[in-house]
Amino acid sequence: RSLVRMGNELRCQCISTHSKFIHPKSIQDVKLTQSGPHCKNVEIIATLKDNREVCLDPTAPWVQLIVKAILAKAQLNSDSPL
Amino acid sequence: RSLVRMGNELRCQCISTHSKFIHPKSIQDVKLTQSGPHCKNVEIIATLKDNREVCLDPTAPWVQLIVKAILAKAQLNSDSPL
Repeated sequence: RSLVRMGNELRCQCISTHSKFIHPKSIQDVKLTQSGPHCKNVEIIATLKDNREVCLDPTAPWVQLIVKAILAKAQLNSDSPL
Repeated sequence: RSLVRMGNELRCQCISTHSKFIHPKSIQDVKLTQSGPHCKNVEIIATLKDNREVCLDPTAPWVQLIVKAILAKAQLNSDSPL
């Protein structure tokens, strides 16, 4: 769960990942960081509603499901954001 | 494309969205913010490799595809992040 906060993330941001289920209701946002020279893994970091940041296991089915659910909900966005 | 940066995002972060295609290679990460009392739309904000932040149109097919591609790649993560 520990998160290494480097300036502009010149390396992996997650040392370990939280594999236990977190209810989507407590998740404010999820950030997917592409793999690259700085880190060979895709990283998924959730910001919880209490502002804690948690590294999620990108290979865990429930993590994939939560991101897909948010993405699917995005498709139903009304045109005006306000 | 303009982004309203409020403290802890008490309202929508995106006033408008960038609908023109952005090549995945120039995208460092994408952040999906759940809709909620603060904003009735799901918001997708990309951080580009030049550190610019761009609000993406969550309903645009190419945006959905890019997020799904990153997610799919995440499933191939090797177990050790380093």
